[in-house]
Amino acid sequence: MTAALIDPDRLWRRLMALAEIGATPAGGVDRQALSEGEIAALARIVAWAREAGLAPALDAAGNLFLTRPGRDPAAAPILLGSHIDTQPTGGRFDGAAGVLAALEAVASFDGLPPGDLAVVAWMNEEGSRFAPGMMGSEAFAGLRDLAAIRAVRDAGGISVGHALDRLHAAFPDLPRRPLGTPVAAYLELHIEQGPVLEAAGRVIGIVTGIQGKKTFRVRLEGREGHAGTLPMDRRRDAVAAFARLAGALHAEVGGLDPDVRFTIGRVAVAPNAPSVVPAEVTFSIDLRHPDNAVLEAAGRRIAALCAGHAAPCGVSLTPLVDAASNTFDPRLRALIARAAAAHGHPAMPVLSAAGHDARNLSRVCPSAMIFIPCRDGASHVETEWAEPAHVAAGAGVLAQVLHDLAAAPDLLATPEPR
Amino acid sequence: MTAALIDPDRLWRRLMALAEIGATPAGGVDRQALSEGEIAALARIVAWAREAGLAPALDAAGNLFLTRPGRDPAAAPILLGSHIDTQPTGGRFDGAAGVLAALEAVASFDGLPPGDLAVVAWMNEEGSRFAPGMMGSEAFAGLRDLAAIRAVRDAGGISVGHALDRLHAAFPDLPRRPLGTPVAAYLELHIEQGPVLEAAGRVIGIVTGIQGKKTFRVRLEGREGHAGTLPMDRRRDAVAAFARLAGALHAEVGGLDPDVRFTIGRVAVAPNAPSVVPAEVTFSIDLRHPDNAVLEAAGRRIAALCAGHAAPCGVSLTPLVDAASNTFDPRLRALIARAAAAHGHPAMPVLSAAGHDARNLSRVCPSAMIFIPCRDGASHVETEWAEPAHVAAGAGVLAQVLHDLAAAPDLLATPEPR
Repeated sequence: MTAALIDPDRLWRRLMALAEIGATPAGGVDRQALSEGEIAALARIVAWAREAGLAPALDAAGNLFLTRPGRDPAAAPILLGSHIDTQPTGGRFDGAAGVLAALEAVASFDGLPPGDLAVVAWMNEEGSRFAPGMMGSEAFAGLRDLAAIRAVRDAGGISVGHALDRLHAAFPDLPRRPLGTPVAAYLELHIEQGPVLEAAGRVIGIVTGIQGKKTFRVRLEGREGHAGTLPMDRRRDAVAAFARLAGALHAEVGGLDPDVRFTIGRVAVAPNAPSVVPAEVTFSIDLRHPDNAVLEAAGRRIAALCAGHAAPCGVSLTPLVDAASNTFDPRLRALIARAAAAHGHPAMPVLSAAGHDARNLSRVCPSAMIFIPCRDGASHVETEWAEPAHVAAGAGVLAQVLHDLAAAPDLLATPEPR
Repeated sequence: MTAALIDPDRLWRRLMALAEIGATPAGGVDRQALSEGEIAALARIVAWAREAGLAPALDAAGNLFLTRPGRDPAAAPILLGSHIDTQPTGGRFDGAAGVLAALEAVASFDGLPPGDLAVVAWMNEEGSRFAPGMMGSEAFAGLRDLAAIRAVRDAGGISVGHALDRLHAAFPDLPRRPLGTPVAAYLELHIEQGPVLEAAGRVIGIVTGIQGKKTFRVRLEGREGHAGTLPMDRRRDAVAAFARLAGALHAEVGGLDPDVRFTIGRVAVAPNAPSVVPAEVTFSIDLRHPDNAVLEAAGRRIAALCAGHAAPCGVSLTPLVDAASNTFDPRLRALIARAAAAHGHPAMPVLSAAGHDARNLSRVCPSAMIFIPCRDGASHVETEWAEPAHVAAGAGVLAQVLHDLAAAPDLLATPEPR
């Protein structure tokens, strides 16, 4: 049945060909958002789409759409996709597998669909060049103003706006698609970026949702002093305050329950000299939990611990990311489970620990994700790897769900049964 | 009486003239060890010494000696001095005041001394370019092999050996003095680099000793992981281990008694990314205490706490500096107190929190130090300042002690009464 829906060999060849654009010596890919490399990769995808008769277009946020027209041009399209930008030392599959599987599923679709089918490659999912990521889907879903996104600058001072203008200039013949039009449903295939499927011996992950995440920057301000002379009781030692505060945070927040993930990954000390009492510590907090009530309570606990443990230093807590956990559409999840069973692929529900564009889409339309395993759960590394058979299985399930959705356009017409 | 012993105006003029070599825009001095600037400053001092009839010479460790011959050339000389290298953003007084006061005292000495009088400028006291500091006096006192010192490299890869060869090449006409010859007594004037004299309204500090110091480098080794996926109970988080260990160290060692000084001044995290469980933390420990028994016990406690609090991370503790506290010669301290009283300067005993070359000299001969106040206790800063009257007072006391020692050569012939 898979063979009838997609061409797995063509998909694999294209995935490997795309990986040559921005290829690193160690076998990975460096193709950051809106770079020359990403523009070249988008041009390659546009050419493949035209071969298949799909109509390419860009929106103002730099999202690329490849549309196969349906019977009713007024019907909201079914959207399938992911992203093709990578981390600076990224791999061949994170993002690209989802875009090319979507292209394969839409290009191979047999017959005239009831509404448009569209492949999408979202602008700047990774957020490594322009932070934070998922800018294209955020703008599309109306969650962030495009003007604010355009103002963000990379480390070299280049703004997203400038880079977007260059992207549009590179494709003068592509029509401009309006930003944020209605969508009937959104489907995204992605590598798991975790070890669960591999450890369980499953090929298809039916993603239940994406765990919520809060990030903060904390700054402790003390006072510099001579390590040999300043009496201990007159010190405002920022590292001593950090040790007390981080100890309390790890114990209380990190020890909350088995589902919490709490990380202080970045610490910067000033002046950071062995014989100087440290004046300042700035550190990051990354907090994740699948239950929004617990996530919110943990966020409040972090604020209370900062206030209570910083003395005699001053403290400031700056929230950066505040993304609630979401649950993907149960009707689409049921379609994925049915398709996996029909294709004979062992499947299981799985929670996504990482963020994806599908979280933003789930705010505006029924959305779901299909995970396939990646070796050792490793991602954002140049050795990232997915088996050709798993890529083919995921794309086949994606194509099957697209087929089933197109055959039952009323499935999503009723309110979501939650 | 002071006026008869030294010329305070000449001393001040020379101090300000020397500060022009390596002067920074903010009014400080950047004249690091064995730099072009230090070589130029040494040349200036050699010229002043020749004006006064002193004989200049360099030893193999780059220490400069300026000798006024005494009656008995076989008698061990009385040595007076300090250093003229500075921190990269250092001041005009730290070191230079001691060398120029010594030059003033020896040049102004009235009559033929019983043995040689020699001024010394020690090589690399600061240790900012080549670490650790006090290399010249360490080599002179036989505490460290010159070959090991020559092998040390600066951040640019230049070795002490190479820099020493350049120093010697810059002074082809200076005779080479043997390294580590006997010394009758060593005297060093220095700014206090602390607030005690200023707060107490005293002009002369009779330095009782230098507090002991141990420094360590600690490395915690955990394992990198994804902040969103890795369960807390499977983590080996190096920052979490650092927080527990540093908390215990600050509480137990930092809270030992009012005399202890405990500082974690430098912390480096790897890979130091907000969404990555940290794999490694390297940090510095600076421990000081005037009581050697307490210092030793605290050092052992640090080792025990590292071993006990690092789990589940691996830990290694590398001792760097291990300098016992020392007590300066009570006979010389009595001479300093008597001279201060004779000159009408309010004086007090004071412990040195910072290290000085005199610590190394005290291992091989009767040694003592004279402190003068510095504004706000600030040193190693470009705004470092000592009042002209205090510089004159300190140099006058130094000259008086030299005079008294020369008049009573048998004072130090008997064993030190401790």
